[in-house]
Order: sequence, then C-alpha cells, then structure tokens
Amino acid sequence: MKKITGLTQVYTGNGKGKTTAALGLALRALGWNKKVCMIQFIKGGKQLGEIKITKNQISQLSIHQFSKSDKIILRPTKKDKVVVQKTFKFAQKIINSDKYDIVILDEINPAIKLKLIDVDEILKIIKQKPKNLELILTGRNADKKIIAASDLVTEMKLIKHPYYKKIPARKGIEY
Amino acid sequence: MKKITGLTQVYTGNGKGKTTAALGLALRALGWNKKVCMIQFIKGGKQLGEIKITKNQISQLSIHQFSKSDKIILRPTKKDKVVVQKTFKFAQKIINSDKYDIVILDEINPAIKLKLIDVDEILKIIKQKPKNLELILTGRNADKKIIAASDLVTEMKLIKHPYYKKIPARKGIEY
Repeated sequence: MKKITGLTQVYTGNGKGKTTAALGLALRALGWNKKVCMIQFIKGGKQLGEIKITKNQISQLSIHQFSKSDKIILRPTKKDKVVVQKTFKFAQKIINSDKYDIVILDEINPAIKLKLIDVDEILKIIKQKPKNLELILTGRNADKKIIAASDLVTEMKLIKHPYYKKIPARKGIEY
Repeated sequence: MKKITGLTQVYTGNGKGKTTAALGLALRALGWNKKVCMIQFIKGGKQLGEIKITKNQISQLSIHQFSKSDKIILRPTKKDKVVVQKTFKFAQKIINSDKYDIVILDEINPAIKLKLIDVDEILKIIKQKPKNLELILTGRNADKKIIAASDLVTEMKLIKHPYYKKIPARKGIEY
C-alpha cells in the first residue's frame, strides 16, 4: 500500500457545503489536536459564525481574512487584486512554515477564475507543499488544471433550492 | 418575500463532505450562540474527532450515538435495527423538545435505505417539526420522497479519488 501523506482536496460546485465541509473537517481535526489554518480569499467580514467562534472559543483554529468586504467579490477592482495578492503571499508563508497539519484556502477557486491569482502559482503550491500537509481548496469553478493536480475532488451539486433567489442569507446558517 | 423559517436540508451523494458540511454548519451556528444537536445513525465509536472536541471543548454542540460499532453498518442485524429505532425515538424527542435551533440526523439516509427506519416516519418529522428548527439529513442514497419533502438538497459528487480503495481512513481527516 502506498504510504499516505497529506493530500490535496478540492470542494467545488454550485451547491452548498463547500466552506462548511472544510470547517467540519477542521473541527474534526481539532478533536485530534491537529493544527488548522483557514485563509479566506475574496470574502471578508467579521460577522461570520466561524470567525466568532474562533475568537471566543476555539483558538487553535485560526481563520484569516484580508478583504474588508462582507460579500464575496464578483467584479474585482484593482484594489481587490492587491488584497488577494497579499492574502496569497500570507498563504504561501503559512504553508511553507510547516506548522500546520491542515491549511484551507477558502474561495481560492473563484479567485483563480477571476484571474486574481495565476493558476500556475497554485499548482506550484500543490507540488511543493510540505508532504504531510493536507491542503484544502474550496469554491466554485475549480480550474481543470487544479482538479488534475489534486488527489480528492468533490463537487457539491445543487439539486434543489426552491426559493434560491428569494432567500436572504440567514445568520447562523449561511454565515 | 416569504418569511423564512427553519428549512430541511439534505446532504447526499457518494462524495466526501456530507457529515463534515453538517459539522461546519454546526460550528458556524455555534458562533452565533445557536444550539445544535447531532444524532448519528448506523455509526458509532468514541474515537471520532468531532466527538472528542465536543467532550473537551465545545459543550454547546451535543453529539449522540447509540451504536457501539465503530464502522458504518452495511448489513444490519436485528440488534442493529433495535438500536436504530432507539436512536430514532431519541431524535423525535430532541426535535419535539424545541430546545435546539439545528438538529442534524447524521447518516439517516442510509438507515432509511437499509429499511431500519420507515421513510414515512421521517416525512412526518419534516412536516411536523418546530417551524424555526433547521433540520439537516445526511448520508448517501437519499430517498426520493425525502428529497421531494426537503427545501434544500445538495449532492456531494465524487469527481476524483485516485486511490479510493487503497486509502485507509486517516485520524483527524476521515474520522
């Protein structure tokens, strides 16, 4: 049997559960005293349940945001690109520090899709990451090259959402 | 706009991320001081990361198991059916107590598929649950009637898992 080291996992697709699957994976890993770092791209806002709980209770899970916007960026400005690049530099540092068991690059896929980060930079990370590190990439529209370079890819597929366009994001559920 | 109350959500499919998405949703909700209860069907074992962390650190998230097996039950015995029925009775009590904002019935879908619980019993729960309760049902092979009765359904679809059959479950990642 091949020796298992850290894999690269991708959670993509138009359905719910991508960021929450990564958070759940983090929660489970914390139960085993693993160290987890989540870095959120193209979204911000301190009013996320997952941010609140890490501030108040689960300090071993660190979540980092650089964007000030509390919405996911869809039409990025030049300033957004600067922020994403800064976030990415931070992510590289965290990954190379070899201090974490799991690093989650949340919403990295749309950041690549929006050309805020070069896909080749992420491919390099996947190739060169510390071998025991579990790397998690989330967000819609995962690039084909990212899927090809990753070990475990799951598509969250929206099957049913009856009032998809009418439902406002609910505190404690969607954020 | 229709007034939003608690929805019924389903996470199904053959991919990873169903239970972890529910756990991540729980983590996020805890950040807003919501009360969450997860009840695990057809699986047990105290050696799950999510159980460990609720025992040691996040006491507002309660996770209940009745099965002693540390593997998901695939070929149930009569005894397994008794345990699942007991779990189900407990779940009914928790849901009707109206003390929780979110109740997660983890691996309920395969329990229905294995005929350990009658699908009509679950349909009744969906119909009669407290209106503000968010009900989450997880597991492969969600029944068509359950999908029809639920508000928000996501399929976790396995896109890639190169050594699916060779990889042993890893502590802190798969459990």
